[in-house]
Amino acid sequence: MNYRIVSNILGKVLLAEAILLLLPMVAALVYRESPMPFLWTILPLVALGLGLNSVKPKSGDLFAREGFVTVGLSWLLMSAFGALPFVLSGDIPHYVDALFETVSGFTTTGASILSDVEAVSRGCTFWRLFTHWVGGMGVLVFIAAILPVSGDHYIHVMRAEVPGPTVSKLVPRARKTARILYLIYFGLTALETVFLLFGGMDFYDAFLHACATAGTGGFSTLGASIGGFNSVYIEMVIATFMLLFGCNFNLFYLILIGQGLTIFKSEELRVYLAIIGAAVLAIALNIMHSVGGFAEGLRYAYFQVTTIISTTGFSTADFDQWPELSRWILVLLMFMGACAGSTAGGLKVSRVIILFKSYLYELKQLILPTRVKRIWFENKAVSDQTVRSVLVYFEVYLTIIGLSVLVLTLDGHDLATNFTASLACISNIGPGLNAVGPMGNYGFFSVLSKLVLIFEMLLGRLEIFPVLFLFAPSVWRRH
Amino acid sequence: MNYRIVSNILGKVLLAEAILLLLPMVAALVYRESPMPFLWTILPLVALGLGLNSVKPKSGDLFAREGFVTVGLSWLLMSAFGALPFVLSGDIPHYVDALFETVSGFTTTGASILSDVEAVSRGCTFWRLFTHWVGGMGVLVFIAAILPVSGDHYIHVMRAEVPGPTVSKLVPRARKTARILYLIYFGLTALETVFLLFGGMDFYDAFLHACATAGTGGFSTLGASIGGFNSVYIEMVIATFMLLFGCNFNLFYLILIGQGLTIFKSEELRVYLAIIGAAVLAIALNIMHSVGGFAEGLRYAYFQVTTIISTTGFSTADFDQWPELSRWILVLLMFMGACAGSTAGGLKVSRVIILFKSYLYELKQLILPTRVKRIWFENKAVSDQTVRSVLVYFEVYLTIIGLSVLVLTLDGHDLATNFTASLACISNIGPGLNAVGPMGNYGFFSVLSKLVLIFEMLLGRLEIFPVLFLFAPSVWRRH
Repeated sequence: MNYRIVSNILGKVLLAEAILLLLPMVAALVYRESPMPFLWTILPLVALGLGLNSVKPKSGDLFAREGFVTVGLSWLLMSAFGALPFVLSGDIPHYVDALFETVSGFTTTGASILSDVEAVSRGCTFWRLFTHWVGGMGVLVFIAAILPVSGDHYIHVMRAEVPGPTVSKLVPRARKTARILYLIYFGLTALETVFLLFGGMDFYDAFLHACATAGTGGFSTLGASIGGFNSVYIEMVIATFMLLFGCNFNLFYLILIGQGLTIFKSEELRVYLAIIGAAVLAIALNIMHSVGGFAEGLRYAYFQVTTIISTTGFSTADFDQWPELSRWILVLLMFMGACAGSTAGGLKVSRVIILFKSYLYELKQLILPTRVKRIWFENKAVSDQTVRSVLVYFEVYLTIIGLSVLVLTLDGHDLATNFTASLACISNIGPGLNAVGPMGNYGFFSVLSKLVLIFEMLLGRLEIFPVLFLFAPSVWRRH
Repeated sequence: MNYRIVSNILGKVLLAEAILLLLPMVAALVYRESPMPFLWTILPLVALGLGLNSVKPKSGDLFAREGFVTVGLSWLLMSAFGALPFVLSGDIPHYVDALFETVSGFTTTGASILSDVEAVSRGCTFWRLFTHWVGGMGVLVFIAAILPVSGDHYIHVMRAEVPGPTVSKLVPRARKTARILYLIYFGLTALETVFLLFGGMDFYDAFLHACATAGTGGFSTLGASIGGFNSVYIEMVIATFMLLFGCNFNLFYLILIGQGLTIFKSEELRVYLAIIGAAVLAIALNIMHSVGGFAEGLRYAYFQVTTIISTTGFSTADFDQWPELSRWILVLLMFMGACAGSTAGGLKVSRVIILFKSYLYELKQLILPTRVKRIWFENKAVSDQTVRSVLVYFEVYLTIIGLSVLVLTLDGHDLATNFTASLACISNIGPGLNAVGPMGNYGFFSVLSKLVLIFEMLLGRLEIFPVLFLFAPSVWRRH
């Protein structure tokens, strides 16, 4: 383990967070609130960041192991400091609650412990929604985009932070890939902000909701979430951007370089759109009688399906009151999530495709063992190792959900609450069903349960291994 | 596809079922009920059986493909005919209900559509509980044990019927293996009958409950199940036999040939016993305040854990009323099931061990890619193919549960009811939670839902592939 390079990068992460905290501090000043909660967070961040960054690596060796550890530790430290403004401002007095809210923000989950989000100060609300934007594309990718990083091995760090079973470099250099990703991310966020301004939102709301959509987060400035704006136009804009931020960013890159038509060759995109279409139709038909017609059904279904599949978690309706079929379709979409290489959580559509194909492969091998070929995805043969990784990922994902529920049951809530809370946190969605439905919140859970859910959110966002890595003793030995 | 040999064996299966139906017919005569419902089932069975059996195979070729198809079709036909006595006697007037009850019997699920089991005639109750015994070890294994079967390729048929990721022949010849298995099965059933007679049960009850335990089924002659006998002795006897019937039968063979002490080298047995121990303790502590002390807690917990992990489904208490922690522990045990090579359903302990090890393998490979060895289980290296099969099995298992719930939601019941009904049927357990809890039944489901649950029970008992095989067009082509 190259501890020096890990320390060096961790220092950069903390400094980057200090810079990002300047924005909510400015917002606090604009709205005549005290900037001190942010200042008292920025100062120790800068001190510790400079200290860690001053450790200069003797070699640029940075392999998968260092990548995972760097990402895991970065997210823990970022969250630990990111929670301070909430506590210092008094908006969220208890540290574990503040940590829950911060991790929920960075991991783009959007599960809240707040019962009254409108009572939170403007500065902290800015930080609350802005964490979605920071965590969506990832702070380590951000560092690669803005700072000179040593060696091209940095791709291992990006791999550990960008979701999906395989990460392709858009261009040979990691740094350039990171810049392109952030350029697209920034551009789409700006575009959504403009669209929302046209819908009558003020700049504060428009920008922050664009940030929360971009990261597929789900926090809102209003307690009633997007439903509180009472505008079909805003709902449709946000639903469409949620759908877009659930797409693999490679596709936007193809559009940027003028190969826009080739994106429909993507198997993952086609399946993603087909599933959205089918789910919207099924739910619209299922709820039409209770919402006043098929058109209204489509409106609610389109928003709710895109918000769940993209793992954002905004709400316009209390889907917890919908018929059981619609509720269960949403639960299945919670498992799946959107495309790899997007800012969304969940298993990812590409993994679901590989899972389905590996089932067909197994069946074919039983029928005709001699004629079986490999599994193909996106016109490439998938290596046995990738297939096994995807299968193991599915297994570990479900196991973590099941075991986490064991702890949640100690609080005594019902099965659907516990199960969907666990699922909604690891899939980085936010709302679940029953007590954690769109009209509920996570404040009632015990400290132990909150810690478990915090852990699940981190596991989900970083795709499990970087976090579990930190608990494997052999990682820490010098090899 | 060697259609002739498939037909030939199917004929034998139907004839075997005709012979087995003589027992409930005798019971009907003894209790002065009409034997006609059984006679009218036996006659067409014999006619069709003789017809199919008269097709003589040109070659003894019998590969995995034929094995799967034979087993899949056998179970469908057996169930279709096995349902007739219930309809003809008027005990269960609707055919789909009777089919549900029969499949639930053969697959050793024990989920019932009956609201008043004590109103059923003696003959049909005999058949109802006896189907557990027939389905537990498997009718095709039974045929191998009593009839001369062509060629040693018959092991492919047995493989498709005996649960577990790998099937080991006890002795080189399939026929002798089948005989040993049935000898152990018969012996343990007889032993349990004797133990139950000592507890004050009459022969009818003792024999039938021994049969239902042996198959890890769960039907009882009483509406209150084992709780209705009000005897701690009977509870402890049945709990212990449920635990035994959840063990791999290879272990009993080792005891038979005088190598009794070697059974504790079995990794699967040790994990199985450890999980039972931990679950009993956790539940006993969790429920002790509501059942009147730790000793009473242990009593209920021991019975309930063994009945769920062995996927039997008898009940002595309404565990649906227990605290959420205990309920969720039981749900997790429903997924797992007992050991491979037993009569139990679920994923099986050996698969769970391999799943856990493949997760550790994946983690190790990320940390130290160069030093990774193979996965070991029961002192043997597990082939990559077996590992992949186990991972795919887990995936397909969970996917089927999730998709089946989609259909069940149309009936409008709550999430926990639908989810545990789906789980309890595919794992061949019987009771779930809420409306399908130990005090409920499956009668309220729609015909469509019942058909889906019937399908799940068959999928679970035959470990998915033999049933899905029947729907793959390429299986039916002549190669």
